[in-house]
Amino acid sequence: MQDVPALVAQARQGRPRAVARLISLVEGASPQLRDVMAALAPFTGNAYVVGLTGSPGVGKSTTTSALVSAYRAAGKRVAVLAVDPSSPFSGGALLGDRIRMSDHASDPGVYIRSMATRGHLGGLAWAAPQAIRVLDAAGFDVVLVETVGVGQSEVEIAAQADTSVVLLAPGMGDGVQAAKAGILEIGDLYVVNKADRDGADATARELNHMLGLGEARAAGDWRPPIVKTVAAKGVGVDELVGALEKHRGWMEERGVLGERRAARAAREIETIAVTALRSRIADLAGDARTGVLAGRVAAGELSPYAAADALLAAVAPGTVTGA
Amino acid sequence: MQDVPALVAQARQGRPRAVARLISLVEGASPQLRDVMAALAPFTGNAYVVGLTGSPGVGKSTTTSALVSAYRAAGKRVAVLAVDPSSPFSGGALLGDRIRMSDHASDPGVYIRSMATRGHLGGLAWAAPQAIRVLDAAGFDVVLVETVGVGQSEVEIAAQADTSVVLLAPGMGDGVQAAKAGILEIGDLYVVNKADRDGADATARELNHMLGLGEARAAGDWRPPIVKTVAAKGVGVDELVGALEKHRGWMEERGVLGERRAARAAREIETIAVTALRSRIADLAGDARTGVLAGRVAAGELSPYAAADALLAAVAPGTVTGA
Repeated sequence: MQDVPALVAQARQGRPRAVARLISLVEGASPQLRDVMAALAPFTGNAYVVGLTGSPGVGKSTTTSALVSAYRAAGKRVAVLAVDPSSPFSGGALLGDRIRMSDHASDPGVYIRSMATRGHLGGLAWAAPQAIRVLDAAGFDVVLVETVGVGQSEVEIAAQADTSVVLLAPGMGDGVQAAKAGILEIGDLYVVNKADRDGADATARELNHMLGLGEARAAGDWRPPIVKTVAAKGVGVDELVGALEKHRGWMEERGVLGERRAARAAREIETIAVTALRSRIADLAGDARTGVLAGRVAAGELSPYAAADALLAAVAPGTVTGA
Repeated sequence: MQDVPALVAQARQGRPRAVARLISLVEGASPQLRDVMAALAPFTGNAYVVGLTGSPGVGKSTTTSALVSAYRAAGKRVAVLAVDPSSPFSGGALLGDRIRMSDHASDPGVYIRSMATRGHLGGLAWAAPQAIRVLDAAGFDVVLVETVGVGQSEVEIAAQADTSVVLLAPGMGDGVQAAKAGILEIGDLYVVNKADRDGADATARELNHMLGLGEARAAGDWRPPIVKTVAAKGVGVDELVGALEKHRGWMEERGVLGERRAARAAREIETIAVTALRSRIADLAGDARTGVLAGRVAAGELSPYAAADALLAAVAPGTVTGA
């Protein structure tokens, strides 16, 4: 068992080891998380959470690294949460990426962490918001959440940021891929990275067309900008930071930021509740009672709905199935 | 509303339209399913359920079609449930496949159905077992469930058959792909289709090695066979049917068939129960109470666990979160 009050106090002082332990409690779905989250709650709500998503190879990690440098230059404390298992932050690095990130490794104002929670019932949808909550309470001004734009839960995590950035690169047929993965709709802003390559303008045009960015919008509505970058050379990174700050300002002005955070909290609560119930049901599934019910269903003596009702009666009295 | 007793009676007489309506009730997550499943229960437990899975392009549909012909020749009634959205049974057909399947279209002993349930909370994991239950009760001797071996739920569905068949084809790097997708472990038997192509022997050898089929097993343990087929020409199909029957016989002899069906029923019950609870929670999430809780969490006044407890108190009194 960890000493929760001590860990929380140390994390609040910015000690990376305490932050790491708290996130490990999230990854391990520790029963102590109740106490951790209760202790952290008063210190949350200050970090600006930016989601970065895109197919492998578009340069997410390079862009993330460039954003870290830009925010550090502005005196902000920055945390990176990589929920992309193929990310160099998760160990799957190309040499170049490793070197780029190691620039930040010795900077106490930067915290980098990858997450792996494949084993847990609620998965990333359960763990990522709680890890963000830890980083928020630990006083990071900006939390960059890097997810690969494949898989429903990764897309959902990116969609739950304050600002969602969708990255593409020229000549990868990315537009179509992104549309398939459902990540196109979630962007508050779009980055065409590797913009010094052939086809960058075509990619931006295709994106502009697919998103209907040329169409009229109501005054005051947010029109997602498309920013061209060559993140590896730092080109366009200031423009990207500018676009992020503009989106943040727009959200604050309109009350959208508060709405988004409440919606994110609602999904977080829902996921914790559903996961707790699933876990109860899975425990019961190992129970002899469920074995008897399953045997009766397999033998045709009982309908699966009647059996589910019997199971639910043990977990959640008063609940009715039927849909 | 459908007249459930009439539909069930007609489905029992083998009327395809009644079977189709019942499966549509499953797809639509109809509230009438409780009654449908209660009426069907006494007639279930007779069909032999075979899952066929593999990457796109290995020839799943062609193999399925060849199996249909073989079982029909033996006088069995056969149903096909295609939960692969790219399957020709789902409309995404190449011309050749369409022609092959249209051979069966006029045969009253064959029923072919594709499923699409992307929209529903519980998805395929919820719907497929209930659709199989409909086909079982409708008196089909064999139910072939075709799933594309990508995506967790498709793999789970295939794994829940009485016998799971994993298909590969030479020269597609399938071994590695299959291992990644986690479908290799689930096979009770393996098919190397398109075995007249170069590399078929190499694929079979690679498979044999990856599965450790050459290693010693306890006497009486099932050793998954590797069957080579050219399904488009009917080559190897009798051997495949023979291998299926051998596996079925082995399961019956050892009591494994009953165990598998009870395990399948247990998962079906569990999925129905979890989906019902998720649906309750999602309903509440639209509720003003959840909005208030989420606002308090976003403001740092409440931990997400305390909020989840409040949500659960409305759905499932007595349930505790914490993991």
